[in-house]
Amino acid sequence: MTEKTKLIAPRLPRGFEDRTPGEIAAVGQMIETIKRVYERYGFDPVETPLFEYTEALGKFLPDTDRPNAGVFSLQDDDEQWMSLRYDLTAPLARHFAENFETLPKPYRSYRQGYVFRNERPGPGRFRQFMQFDADTVGAGGPEADAEMCMMMADVMDELGLGGKYVVRVSNRKVLDGVLSGLGLGSDGGRSLAVLRAIDKLDRLGVEGVRGLLGKGRKDESGDFSKGADLTDDQANAILALVHSNIAIEGKIEGGEACGPGSAAIVPHPDFPLDSLAPAMATIKFVEGVAELSGMQRLFNAAGYGPDRIKIDPSVVRGLEYYTGPVFEIELTFPVINEKGQPVVFGSVGGGGRYDGLVSRFRREPVPATGFSIGVSRLFNALKLTGNIASTEPVGPVVVLVMDKDHTAGYQGMVSELRKAGIRAEMFLGNTKNFGKQVAYADKRNAPAVIIEGSQEREQGIVQIKDLVAGKQAASAITDNAEWKAARPGQFEVRREDLVAEIKKLLSQQ
Amino acid sequence: MTEKTKLIAPRLPRGFEDRTPGEIAAVGQMIETIKRVYERYGFDPVETPLFEYTEALGKFLPDTDRPNAGVFSLQDDDEQWMSLRYDLTAPLARHFAENFETLPKPYRSYRQGYVFRNERPGPGRFRQFMQFDADTVGAGGPEADAEMCMMMADVMDELGLGGKYVVRVSNRKVLDGVLSGLGLGSDGGRSLAVLRAIDKLDRLGVEGVRGLLGKGRKDESGDFSKGADLTDDQANAILALVHSNIAIEGKIEGGEACGPGSAAIVPHPDFPLDSLAPAMATIKFVEGVAELSGMQRLFNAAGYGPDRIKIDPSVVRGLEYYTGPVFEIELTFPVINEKGQPVVFGSVGGGGRYDGLVSRFRREPVPATGFSIGVSRLFNALKLTGNIASTEPVGPVVVLVMDKDHTAGYQGMVSELRKAGIRAEMFLGNTKNFGKQVAYADKRNAPAVIIEGSQEREQGIVQIKDLVAGKQAASAITDNAEWKAARPGQFEVRREDLVAEIKKLLSQQ
Repeated sequence: MTEKTKLIAPRLPRGFEDRTPGEIAAVGQMIETIKRVYERYGFDPVETPLFEYTEALGKFLPDTDRPNAGVFSLQDDDEQWMSLRYDLTAPLARHFAENFETLPKPYRSYRQGYVFRNERPGPGRFRQFMQFDADTVGAGGPEADAEMCMMMADVMDELGLGGKYVVRVSNRKVLDGVLSGLGLGSDGGRSLAVLRAIDKLDRLGVEGVRGLLGKGRKDESGDFSKGADLTDDQANAILALVHSNIAIEGKIEGGEACGPGSAAIVPHPDFPLDSLAPAMATIKFVEGVAELSGMQRLFNAAGYGPDRIKIDPSVVRGLEYYTGPVFEIELTFPVINEKGQPVVFGSVGGGGRYDGLVSRFRREPVPATGFSIGVSRLFNALKLTGNIASTEPVGPVVVLVMDKDHTAGYQGMVSELRKAGIRAEMFLGNTKNFGKQVAYADKRNAPAVIIEGSQEREQGIVQIKDLVAGKQAASAITDNAEWKAARPGQFEVRREDLVAEIKKLLSQQ
Repeated sequence: MTEKTKLIAPRLPRGFEDRTPGEIAAVGQMIETIKRVYERYGFDPVETPLFEYTEALGKFLPDTDRPNAGVFSLQDDDEQWMSLRYDLTAPLARHFAENFETLPKPYRSYRQGYVFRNERPGPGRFRQFMQFDADTVGAGGPEADAEMCMMMADVMDELGLGGKYVVRVSNRKVLDGVLSGLGLGSDGGRSLAVLRAIDKLDRLGVEGVRGLLGKGRKDESGDFSKGADLTDDQANAILALVHSNIAIEGKIEGGEACGPGSAAIVPHPDFPLDSLAPAMATIKFVEGVAELSGMQRLFNAAGYGPDRIKIDPSVVRGLEYYTGPVFEIELTFPVINEKGQPVVFGSVGGGGRYDGLVSRFRREPVPATGFSIGVSRLFNALKLTGNIASTEPVGPVVVLVMDKDHTAGYQGMVSELRKAGIRAEMFLGNTKNFGKQVAYADKRNAPAVIIEGSQEREQGIVQIKDLVAGKQAASAITDNAEWKAARPGQFEVRREDLVAEIKKLLSQQ
């Protein structure tokens, strides 16, 4: 390595990033809170490796524009393709199917880890990012779905986001019923196009979605996106659905109350139900509403009001594999978007029922439901609301090296401090410049430095410089000569009292 | 997904594995202990992504037989090659060089995470495994190296391995000096072959290593490994070196004492120093011994005796990039190897000084030293010594579903328990079979189940079945009828006392 070769540029591939001590600590704290809630709900951890066989993952990414991209894949020695996981749901389905005989059923598990997308990175959009999932496999009833929603509400409450979120719930069967009632049910590609158009309602507004449901839409840059080619009547029916409310047992604002055990669709005043009415008679639609009704009963029993969990037919979720209830956490506080407009913060996670995913591995049907939190997005939200501090950690006490021949003595001090459980280190850089040693301690956010020159050693004392008190005192002193004379925050103690004095100092800071 | 396609086999690529709740908890506990020690030593966490540009990683894997393999690589959209990291040292060098202007110097950091090797997997040999590293970049003196050794000793002590480990220390310069004294210094390939022959001393014994130093060696399967082609005299000199002791300031067993500040080589009785003598006069050799002497002074000052940290010239470490001190943790307790022979457990981590690694990115020399712990290997050692339990977690209290129409009521119980901080869940599987519900609770390692049938509901009571006491009692009862009558561990409480009674029960278990 000594030959004079060309230097290599120290940089990361696009869409990847390093994480700092402050961020690691803050994200770690957030993750511990989420884990605590998941465990209280009876979920146990499981971990799968980062690679899976490509065929085991399947192709469920929402990005239809690049059908074969989106995933990092490579060919193994035996020519089989393997891929880095793009979410934590597909590996769970494989894990459950592989360990079907031994796992408890229903199987409740949570998983946290990095996932990878081989997509074009952008601001806030990375190719490696963390998800935190919980899933219940082998439970088909609305109880399992309702529990997911309540657990997400509890996570938000425990993170300090109470009053700033709502878990919104709908059911894919409601939409599927409408599509089949409109004569669109048998065309999988068109269903998916409708689904993804609705999913953009927040971002594009009613007219944008109407365009995507119809002939298509030209965006601001002039690019044209082809639409789902629905008639005006069909598009109106879809828009009426996503703007309506579903009233269950009278639990809804602004609509007629309906009796216990029943449900009713309450239209938005601007979107009448006329065009939707025939679709509402389909079996799928009725099933979907009944499942939502079952979930609402459980929310009521457990005391989760519409301020925390709310039925909302505009929720669809972009992934194709959902088969029943779908849900997402929306953070409702305002932020300013990249165009300078005030918008709500929006989704930090979502999920739903995916009864078909395990069946890819096994003949019998295996119901499953789950939830995924986007860790970075939730972390950014917590920073904005001030519920988490991403500050750098408190550094170690730094023993300065005043005399290069006495490092064994300084090392002895450090060892004493560490044995007492105190973060401590000897300065290990170039010791010629005293100022650089103190600057290092400052940069490390050290609470104190310890100084022992030959004079101090002869007298059996050491100087302690309290860097926190020193900074406060120094800010009040404007004159350089005065500062040098006052030596703010500095005091001497007997060598044998070093550990006790540092302990006292740290407890006071 | 409803079409009858061919089923996919649920399995992982070779060399990858899932992790269970018990293992996740136990490894997590071990990692927390290691972190606590590292932080006390003044190290802060940092995290790099799993991908790096291939050229930034360099080619430093010990497996010379497959020069271009060993690493998982793929080509990015812009044709640049990127690779999954194969260790945590190369990414650190990149991170330090990239953030040179802003990082404190010396830069102390620790990192924990998965690394990947595209190698043939085998028993206990995986293609994804975890390492836990600490490094000091920008400190050239023996203080930084000595600190690494002391920190590793502290980690072993805090994990409960006191008396069962030794940190062994040598210096690459000692070996380099010998090689150049023997006229072998300028041939990099041959130096590496010697290095890797010595590294196999534990496994192959003296005659095996002598073969690899000379013409070569045929192993038990009949495969021939080409040797380093040294003369008998040269091979004897190397063997004398690795069997000798280095005596520093009289701190050695069985050798002549030497005065303060001085060091001496103490030969093994079977391996005289005659052939080594000329090599011992080289500058490199003298430098290496002086650095070891400096480290020993610091071990003495901090109270680390040879029972914990020991100079041992047979330590070389297989990686090419080390430039000075090298060290490894050896666990000294006996285990039985795959051939049924008793051997010591051996290495669970190692490291050394690598002054050239950052220089690949920057013109100026940047000294660095570090240590890497093999997390799985250390975990296996702790399981063997009984210092860590890999038991499955205590499960949730399970509320059984006796009546499918009253799930809202059962959900209410679960919510009350969870609000009190108790792990709890309602049974979400097929509720037709009571026995299956209890079997599920058993499998989940549940402390208790709660039973409320229509009779209990009318009386305002619930049955609590203590599964821990129940199992103990049941083991004393051999008759099935007696068991049914006694209903061991089961008792009834008023519905409103449910949370208080469960709390009491859990505190007693």
